[in-house]
Amino acid sequence: MNSPGRHFLQIPGPSNTPLPILSALAMPTIDHRGPDFGKLGAEVLSRIRNVFQTEQPVVIYPASGTGAWEAALVNTLSPGDHVLMYQTGWFASLWCKMAAKLGIEAEVMAGDWRSGVEADRIGARLAEDRAHAIKAVCVVHNETSTGVTSDIAALRRAMDAAGHPALLLVDTISSLGSVEYRHDEWGVDVTVGGSQKGLMLPPGLSFNAVSQKARTAAAKARLPRAFWEWEDMIAANARGYFPYTPATNMLQALKVALDMLDSEGLANVFTRHRRAAEATRAAVRHWGFETQCRVEAEHSPVLTAVRLPEGHSADALRAEILARSNMSLGNGLGPLNDQVFRIGHLGDFHDLMVTGTISGVEMGLAARGIPHRTGGVLAAMQSLAGNGSPVLDAAE
Amino acid sequence: MNSPGRHFLQIPGPSNTPLPILSALAMPTIDHRGPDFGKLGAEVLSRIRNVFQTEQPVVIYPASGTGAWEAALVNTLSPGDHVLMYQTGWFASLWCKMAAKLGIEAEVMAGDWRSGVEADRIGARLAEDRAHAIKAVCVVHNETSTGVTSDIAALRRAMDAAGHPALLLVDTISSLGSVEYRHDEWGVDVTVGGSQKGLMLPPGLSFNAVSQKARTAAAKARLPRAFWEWEDMIAANARGYFPYTPATNMLQALKVALDMLDSEGLANVFTRHRRAAEATRAAVRHWGFETQCRVEAEHSPVLTAVRLPEGHSADALRAEILARSNMSLGNGLGPLNDQVFRIGHLGDFHDLMVTGTISGVEMGLAARGIPHRTGGVLAAMQSLAGNGSPVLDAAE
Amino acid sequence: MNSPGRHFLQIPGPSNTPLPILSALAMPTIDHRGPDFGKLGAEVLSRIRNVFQTEQPVVIYPASGTGAWEAALVNTLSPGDHVLMYQTGWFASLWCKMAAKLGIEAEVMAGDWRSGVEADRIGARLAEDRAHAIKAVCVVHNETSTGVTSDIAALRRAMDAAGHPALLLVDTISSLGSVEYRHDEWGVDVTVGGSQKGLMLPPGLSFNAVSQKARTAAAKARLPRAFWEWEDMIAANARGYFPYTPATNMLQALKVALDMLDSEGLANVFTRHRRAAEATRAAVRHWGFETQCRVEAEHSPVLTAVRLPEGHSADALRAEILARSNMSLGNGLGPLNDQVFRIGHLGDFHDLMVTGTISGVEMGLAARGIPHRTGGVLAAMQSLAGNGSPVLDAAE
Amino acid sequence: MNSPGRHFLQIPGPSNTPLPILSALAMPTIDHRGPDFGKLGAEVLSRIRNVFQTEQPVVIYPASGTGAWEAALVNTLSPGDHVLMYQTGWFASLWCKMAAKLGIEAEVMAGDWRSGVEADRIGARLAEDRAHAIKAVCVVHNETSTGVTSDIAALRRAMDAAGHPALLLVDTISSLGSVEYRHDEWGVDVTVGGSQKGLMLPPGLSFNAVSQKARTAAAKARLPRAFWEWEDMIAANARGYFPYTPATNMLQALKVALDMLDSEGLANVFTRHRRAAEATRAAVRHWGFETQCRVEAEHSPVLTAVRLPEGHSADALRAEILARSNMSLGNGLGPLNDQVFRIGHLGDFHDLMVTGTISGVEMGLAARGIPHRTGGVLAAMQSLAGNGSPVLDAAE
Repeated sequence: MNSPGRHFLQIPGPSNTPLPILSALAMPTIDHRGPDFGKLGAEVLSRIRNVFQTEQPVVIYPASGTGAWEAALVNTLSPGDHVLMYQTGWFASLWCKMAAKLGIEAEVMAGDWRSGVEADRIGARLAEDRAHAIKAVCVVHNETSTGVTSDIAALRRAMDAAGHPALLLVDTISSLGSVEYRHDEWGVDVTVGGSQKGLMLPPGLSFNAVSQKARTAAAKARLPRAFWEWEDMIAANARGYFPYTPATNMLQALKVALDMLDSEGLANVFTRHRRAAEATRAAVRHWGFETQCRVEAEHSPVLTAVRLPEGHSADALRAEILARSNMSLGNGLGPLNDQVFRIGHLGDFHDLMVTGTISGVEMGLAARGIPHRTGGVLAAMQSLAGNGSPVLDAAE
Repeated sequence: MNSPGRHFLQIPGPSNTPLPILSALAMPTIDHRGPDFGKLGAEVLSRIRNVFQTEQPVVIYPASGTGAWEAALVNTLSPGDHVLMYQTGWFASLWCKMAAKLGIEAEVMAGDWRSGVEADRIGARLAEDRAHAIKAVCVVHNETSTGVTSDIAALRRAMDAAGHPALLLVDTISSLGSVEYRHDEWGVDVTVGGSQKGLMLPPGLSFNAVSQKARTAAAKARLPRAFWEWEDMIAANARGYFPYTPATNMLQALKVALDMLDSEGLANVFTRHRRAAEATRAAVRHWGFETQCRVEAEHSPVLTAVRLPEGHSADALRAEILARSNMSLGNGLGPLNDQVFRIGHLGDFHDLMVTGTISGVEMGLAARGIPHRTGGVLAAMQSLAGNGSPVLDAAE
Repeated sequence: MNSPGRHFLQIPGPSNTPLPILSALAMPTIDHRGPDFGKLGAEVLSRIRNVFQTEQPVVIYPASGTGAWEAALVNTLSPGDHVLMYQTGWFASLWCKMAAKLGIEAEVMAGDWRSGVEADRIGARLAEDRAHAIKAVCVVHNETSTGVTSDIAALRRAMDAAGHPALLLVDTISSLGSVEYRHDEWGVDVTVGGSQKGLMLPPGLSFNAVSQKARTAAAKARLPRAFWEWEDMIAANARGYFPYTPATNMLQALKVALDMLDSEGLANVFTRHRRAAEATRAAVRHWGFETQCRVEAEHSPVLTAVRLPEGHSADALRAEILARSNMSLGNGLGPLNDQVFRIGHLGDFHDLMVTGTISGVEMGLAARGIPHRTGGVLAAMQSLAGNGSPVLDAAE
Repeated sequence: MNSPGRHFLQIPGPSNTPLPILSALAMPTIDHRGPDFGKLGAEVLSRIRNVFQTEQPVVIYPASGTGAWEAALVNTLSPGDHVLMYQTGWFASLWCKMAAKLGIEAEVMAGDWRSGVEADRIGARLAEDRAHAIKAVCVVHNETSTGVTSDIAALRRAMDAAGHPALLLVDTISSLGSVEYRHDEWGVDVTVGGSQKGLMLPPGLSFNAVSQKARTAAAKARLPRAFWEWEDMIAANARGYFPYTPATNMLQALKVALDMLDSEGLANVFTRHRRAAEATRAAVRHWGFETQCRVEAEHSPVLTAVRLPEGHSADALRAEILARSNMSLGNGLGPLNDQVFRIGHLGDFHDLMVTGTISGVEMGLAARGIPHRTGGVLAAMQSLAGNGSPVLDAAE
């Protein structure tokens, strides 16, 4: 479909890519062994750490996010190792399946897919594990299938309280650069990130921020690994290079993404996401729908998963909106199939993209005859107005 | 201001430029005397005629639209010639001033800046002119300062009824490619067009579609001209070339613009503009404001000029909206300064850009404390819904 | 023809456009009445002066170079005014024809098309003109049809020696930004420039740098003018804006062009052009051909016009090279038609583009069976080697 | 270094990326679960097969080429499996190291790094292996460190003659799309490819073309795998989608790359590479240097590795050329460090880029005082002239 006007890519990632980033992506590929590349590599390897709030190494893979999941596991674990994985939703469950495929014994702690990681439950489970059989705890910071953000600091406290030495592995693929995150302060051992959400790049780069404890574990971990090997990366990265051909153009674009985040200020970026999320939820409440997330403190700043009333197809609604309004929304995943649709409000956007998005949903609801209270977009506008304007506030 | 998200360029032109057009603009400049250029030139010179609905020559200038105004005058007139110019608004009055500068005696027929050309009045004036002193009638099809579109077919009928041989010169800078227009059928002698509105290009190209009668007049016209000379252009154009260096990259982009218009279909393009205009006016009415245009049949499909209540500054509102919502709106021109703001809804857009735009205005009204009835955006959405969806209709 | 590899655009302009400039051209059009534009306008209007070496106004037209020729004439002259124009070649002769079309009495001082402006001859003619009937002297700095650069400082001295008040109008369309030029120091009254040569932009912008004396003359000049009117431009430019819609995207790109020229340094840019020209001439001499320019001190740094031996078609050679090597060369213009071809070595290029170009010509000569001594490319390489490397020298 | 002119990226990959491909890369990311993506995915998955000359599945990874090496191994092998790897040079030896890291027992058959795979030797070794302990034979089609292309058809014949069931795994990372290759006809089981060489894309995509025999082996292979799992890919690919987020923008660009290859015709592309390679070798011979490859029939069409005389530093030469001529060349790898430099002549190039490249090397040799016979560039030009012109031939 080659519709007029700009496509509204309101899935919860990949997010809308700003033109300066696309423009950097389209600059010619440079020699990845030449001096200009060395400078570029050193710069982005250094500056990406700030996004993770870490002073420890961040490994950058020329691979999409699923690869960084695998990297986190194969660098730290051995065949048959026991890990505890909390199933917040679809993506957490995919990570569990991956662990199983790789020969890891994944103990899945089931969640209700409507709330975040229960730190206390994990703490209790670890406290039971006196033999320290559990080698790692794996959680998803922002569950993209449900729109729930978990409290990683609380999880850290629970693990500390249990006095358990398990590694803490956290997936931030859909939160990195959009939601506050503190790799060092929260004592995370491996943080998994991707390029195509808060970093506003296309998919194709992914990250592992790694603690010293994780590197020590890696020295003993026996899962086979080569492409994902951290230490080869870290060694070559010292001079700004990579052990094999990196995704040169993506790194050129990453530099611009970091410039844009720095220029706005990470704190302002996070505030902007929260405002958009609140406005979106105001619309959803007004329509009379439930969000998939049911814990007020855990609503995601990145996306809102909306539950449709019984008997209405979320996929038909999304198809209607795509055809009518040139806007893509996220689908319901796994058990939420066709019941839920997901509105992304992340990356490069501002208030009018939020209201445009919500108006598109509201017009779609009307067109499909799905009962709702009209005026969600006004509720969103009131929310935005009551929440100050980051632009104007910053100028004061 | 380097705000996040896409800028909403909702001035009544230049319009939002689609990425495929920008991409064509950024392809390397080619040899304007080489064979590839000859093919490109021949193609765009031929295909642009369809946009004017003409089978006669269209001259393409490597200059912005004001230049094509000058070209229309200097090719057809001699020093001291008497012309009749109807002042629909600011742009019509600028064209009058240009005529005076060029040594033409411009008789200005004043309008009220809230309605279109009065064909009957012009017909009456021409009927009086038994000596045929009036060499040309100059009107603006779509007056960008007021949001009024005039009925050119009616004007043609009035001129025919008066049996007057004056040339008919029409400015379509802000209507070309957005509003139905028929150069041949309506017997227009010179149609002036520009690249940066309905053609969705940046500014930098402009057009004269010229009738045989206009060319005959040109043969006798004595205003000095060289850069603007039609016949040099038409002669060189026969083989796809230009008498002097053309704006090569703009022509590369024009080809893509023509592809996009053809792909959507001109009739669908016009319908899309009318829908957007109706939705915008529904919002304006809901807010309780007047449009500058006060004749129902003459509302422009391209832009809506909105009158603010006394005592409120349109410029302060526009500044607020720019800072708050990263959206540019058009200002009030000349006597409408600070009383009127103009909303562009033209070129490359769709429903969500309309509702996003209107929501931005409504949030700005609230922020500035300008009394209005809230819910304009809902009125716009109802208008859009009641007007069918060109996309869906086309698919049926 | 969609040949593999980068097209070598070795015509003497438009020149090869660097990717960062194309990228800036492809950034979305901004509101030409908004605050961001005001900043951009003010910056480029100020910085462009350095390229002309002037502290006086530079008017920027949204039109290609031929328009700026017309602007120089219509702002300073009245119908029937007598001007002295030196015919260095095809482009000088086109300017003469334009003057005649505009109703100016152009006295043409014939040249031999193989050398530059004879300052003494002009001085002598002015000295004769005791009544000061001659209102302006018009010359082309770098004659693009012949590859000859004239000595403007010498012309200034000759005019001063004659004590004649005529204005000095100089076309620098093909030299600006490639060859040293000093508008203020050389006492030029109007310098005409274009975007598509040394400034490395596509065609579509042109310039008039204007002296106070020229502005004083303009106040009395009576040729009709509106689009080209300096004073409307200068007045609006004071705040960074334009009296009518400018070529927004070209101005965005001009900023980047100025950045690139500043980053390299104008003096280094000029040296780079001279090196390329010397290398090219070394090849031409080696082949056994004559350059069209026959005065050693007047060889153009921008292009080299090469004369083929009798009986060989320059156009057939160019067509062969285009088909075989994906390279465009300039044709012979006017009386030089098919006898001369022109090699552009200007704008964004370096040594390998020079040697690549020359090798392409040499392979074409061989393919067409045109007698020549092989090894021109080696002569060019020796010339480049003997001339130092600006890159390496700058680094020392 | 921000030198003027286009960088000559003459490393043996990544290759120079054509602007239409960069432009497609810079089009906004689309929804990887939406209908437009499904069409794109289906198209590129289908059309890529032609480049491999296969009708079997080609798996596309959102990862650079090294990843596809790992994929080939982990999908087909089990821990401790015995494989035979022929060490043609540096890249073959890296693949061996990877196999070892992954827990595979790699039997390395040493080569001399100056010639290709010895099919007979492999055949003999397989014939000895009556127990069929050897599960796979791994070779590199085009060894990028030495400029040697091996004869895969001969290897297939030798394996068949030995009647051995080992899988045949072939790395074509630097030959795919530049050198004739026939996955099906040659009975290859896994062909490993990458995006950044003959496909003219940036790095970031890689490929496994897989035979039915390979898929059958995969069903039993026990090396842990998840990200690299073929069957998940092949299942999702059936409808044009991927099991996890693909590198969307790279796939958009891949479509354009396939268009370009189809438009030129693969056979013409291969001929163009051979011509460039022959011309380059003509220059090297003229200079008096040896190529690293010493078997006439095995010279690579993609790159030429040049041996410098003893006592001269290849790295110092490359640095000189980079500074002086804005050209990157490949370095000597492993034992060839500083003795060899590598000239890439692949991807998007034509004759003038070849001669420009060679002239840059020759100027560098002179500048570094490395003894050589001048005139290599002339030898290259003669070679090109004697080899016909694919462009002209195709037009006949």
